[in-house]
Amino acid sequence: MFKKIFENVRTKSPLIHNITNYVTVNDCANILLAVGASPIMADEADEVVDITRLSQALNINIGTLNTRTIPAMLNAGKEANRLQHPVLLDPVGAGASILRTETAQSLMQAINFTVIRGNMSEIKTLASGTGTTKGVDVDIADKITSENLSEAVDFAKSFARQSKSVVVITGAIDIVTDGEKAYCIYNGHPMMSVITGTGCQLSALTTAFIAANSDQVLQASAAAVMVMGLAGEIAHDRLTGFDGNASYRNYIIDAIYHMTGDQLEGGAKYEVY
Amino acid sequence: MFKKIFENVRTKSPLIHNITNYVTVNDCANILLAVGASPIMADEADEVVDITRLSQALNINIGTLNTRTIPAMLNAGKEANRLQHPVLLDPVGAGASILRTETAQSLMQAINFTVIRGNMSEIKTLASGTGTTKGVDVDIADKITSENLSEAVDFAKSFARQSKSVVVITGAIDIVTDGEKAYCIYNGHPMMSVITGTGCQLSALTTAFIAANSDQVLQASAAAVMVMGLAGEIAHDRLTGFDGNASYRNYIIDAIYHMTGDQLEGGAKYEVY
Amino acid sequence: MFKKIFENVRTKSPLIHNITNYVTVNDCANILLAVGASPIMADEADEVVDITRLSQALNINIGTLNTRTIPAMLNAGKEANRLQHPVLLDPVGAGASILRTETAQSLMQAINFTVIRGNMSEIKTLASGTGTTKGVDVDIADKITSENLSEAVDFAKSFARQSKSVVVITGAIDIVTDGEKAYCIYNGHPMMSVITGTGCQLSALTTAFIAANSDQVLQASAAAVMVMGLAGEIAHDRLTGFDGNASYRNYIIDAIYHMTGDQLEGGAKYEVY
Repeated sequence: MFKKIFENVRTKSPLIHNITNYVTVNDCANILLAVGASPIMADEADEVVDITRLSQALNINIGTLNTRTIPAMLNAGKEANRLQHPVLLDPVGAGASILRTETAQSLMQAINFTVIRGNMSEIKTLASGTGTTKGVDVDIADKITSENLSEAVDFAKSFARQSKSVVVITGAIDIVTDGEKAYCIYNGHPMMSVITGTGCQLSALTTAFIAANSDQVLQASAAAVMVMGLAGEIAHDRLTGFDGNASYRNYIIDAIYHMTGDQLEGGAKYEVY
Repeated sequence: MFKKIFENVRTKSPLIHNITNYVTVNDCANILLAVGASPIMADEADEVVDITRLSQALNINIGTLNTRTIPAMLNAGKEANRLQHPVLLDPVGAGASILRTETAQSLMQAINFTVIRGNMSEIKTLASGTGTTKGVDVDIADKITSENLSEAVDFAKSFARQSKSVVVITGAIDIVTDGEKAYCIYNGHPMMSVITGTGCQLSALTTAFIAANSDQVLQASAAAVMVMGLAGEIAHDRLTGFDGNASYRNYIIDAIYHMTGDQLEGGAKYEVY
Repeated sequence: MFKKIFENVRTKSPLIHNITNYVTVNDCANILLAVGASPIMADEADEVVDITRLSQALNINIGTLNTRTIPAMLNAGKEANRLQHPVLLDPVGAGASILRTETAQSLMQAINFTVIRGNMSEIKTLASGTGTTKGVDVDIADKITSENLSEAVDFAKSFARQSKSVVVITGAIDIVTDGEKAYCIYNGHPMMSVITGTGCQLSALTTAFIAANSDQVLQASAAAVMVMGLAGEIAHDRLTGFDGNASYRNYIIDAIYHMTGDQLEGGAKYEVY
C-alpha cells in the first residue's frame, strides 16, 4: 500500500502551493522536487487565490508569521476548501507567542484542514488554547516515549476527532491518526532535530503525499512520515567522519531523491493502534 | 571571446543589487560570489535607490512577489536606467497569477530592461499578455525541442525587437537573442530542473556578466547561460551513488567557483542563427 | 577559559531569538543548532516581545532591512534590555544606504547592545555617522592588516567605550574589545569571504556564546570569533579538488557541529592588547 502511495507522488507530480517561512523555504522546495512534486511559493494576499487554483494542494506554515501573510493564508485556505484541495497546517511555534496561538486557532476556525502536523507542544496548544512551547522545539515534558505512547495516541485521536483532521504529531515516535486508527512510526534518527526545518520539510512532503492520494489521507500522511524518517536513517548511515548537520541536511534530501516505493515498503517501521 | 567575457567578471568583480525572492536568494548570493561578483540584497522602497547607486547592475526577480516590494522594484529600476546600469528582469511565474502577469508588464512599461530571462511560458505571457504557466515551471506545450527550435527562435527574436531587450529563454535548448542574432545553447543537464532556483541563479549570474561586459550584452548573456549549463554538466559528472538534488545544487555552485575562461571556451556548445 | 566558555554553550543550549535577513537565515539557524544552541526566528512587531521573553538572548541583523521589521527590532531590543538579556547588533551594510545607517543609529540610541559585530566599514559608519561601505563587504581602505592593526585596535577600543558595548570587528584579523582589553584573533581563512553570510553566522554564534556566558561577555565574544575562524580553517583543510564555496559553506557548519572545547583551546590564535 505504501509503495503505491509513494509511486503516486512520483507519477502525478502534484503542484504544491506553499505559504511558508523564510527560514526553511529553500529546503521545502528542494524536498518537494526530490520526491517528484513541484513547489510554488506565493504569500501575497492579492495572488494566492490564483496560485491555489493552479495547484493540487496547499501547505500553510506559520514559522515566520507576519501580519501581511495572515490574510494570504486565509484567502488561500478558503479557496482550497472550496475547490476541495487538500490543505495542511503546520502550526510552527504555536504556544510561543499569542500571535501564533491565536492565528493558528483562527486558521482552524476558518479553514477545514485535511492534515495538521506539529510537535506535541504545538498540538497541545491547538487542543487546549494554551501552551508551553519552548520556541519551535518540543518541550521536554511533551516528548513522546514508549512510556507515554498510549496516552499520547489517545490524545492525538481525540484531537483528530475534535479538529476533523488527520493529525500528525512528530517526535522520537511519530503518531498519525484520523481519530479512529493510529499509526505509530519508529523511523527517523535523533540527529534530525539538529537540522533546522525537518518539520517544515515533512509538512511540505506530506502535502504532496495527500495531494497525490486524496482518497487515503491517513495512509498517505503516514507514508510521508515514514519516508522522511527513513531518509533520515539512510542519510545518517552515509555520514563520514567530518560530516555534521549541514551535510546531513543535504543527505536527507538526497535520500528522498533516490527513494523508491520498495525501499519504503521494506524500511517502514510502525505499529497500528 | 567568451573567455574574455568570463574573465571580465572575475577581474571587475561587479556589485550586483538583487531584488529577489526568499526561496532561492541564498543560492543567488553564493553563485555570484562563486563567479567573482559581489551580491547585495535590498528590497525596501526607501533604500533601493541608494543601493542601486552603489551597484553596477540590478537583478529584478518576481519569484515571491508582494505588494511591499513592487515599489522597490520600480524605484530601483528607474534609477538604474537613469544611471545607465544594466537591469535584468526574471518574470518568475508570470502567467501563474494576475498579480505576477500585471506586475511584469508594468515593470516592462516603466523600466528599460537590458535582459529579460525566463522560461518559454513566462516569456510567452509577457509577449501576449496571457499565459498558461503551470506554477514556476514551463508548460509541456512550451518546451523547446529540436523540432520547434526554429519557430522558438523566431518568436524570441520578435519579442527581443518588441521589448528592445536581449531575451534569454531557457529550457532543454536555451535561446539568447537581441532580435538580430540568436545563440542556441546546448549546455546543461535535465537534472538541473530538479533543483529549485537554477533559473534564479542564472538570472543573478547573467546580471553579473552584463555588468562586467556592458558593451556586449548579447554575448555576455550567452556566456552566462553557457557557464551555468556547463556547471550543470561538470557537477553532474561529479555525482556519486548517493548524491541527489541537494548535493547537485552544491556541486553546481562549486563548479562555477572553479570555472575558468578556458573551460568555458572549450565546453560551450552552441549554434548561431 | 575558552574551553569552559564553549562547553557552557553546549550544556546550557540557549534559545536565541533572531531578527535577521532572509538571505542567510537558514545558515544562522543551522550554525546555532551545530553549536548546541536553539534558534527561533520571529520578526513581527506583534509577537517579538513574547518571543524575546521565551529566549535567552537576542540577535538583531539589518541585512535585508525593511520598514515592517524596524519596529519589531525596537520592541524586542527594549524588552531584552528590560529583562537584562544579552542583545547583539549586526549592522549589515550600515553606510550603504541612509535607511541602514539611520536605523543602526536609532537602534543604538534606543537599545543597549551587549555586543556590536560588523566589518570595519560598518563599524566606522556607526562611529562617525557616515560611511563608505561598498555594499555588505568591507571597503579596501578599511581592511585590517598587521600594518594598521594598532590603529584599528585603538579605534575599536574607543568605539567600545563610546557605545558601552563589546565591539567585534571582523576581517583578516579580528578585533574583540570591551574598551579596555582587546583580543586580536588570527583564526580564519580568506575563502570565508566567498561564502555569503559568514558574518551573519558569526553574529548568531556570538549571541549564543554571550547567552551562555553572560558574566564574561568579552571572552565569550572572543571565543565565538575563534570558533568561527577555526571552523573555517578545519573546513578548508577538508576541501578536495572539486569543492568550492558551496561545499565550503556546509563544511564550516559541519566543523562547528564537531568542535570541542579542547579543539578550541588548542587551535585559538590570538594576542591580547
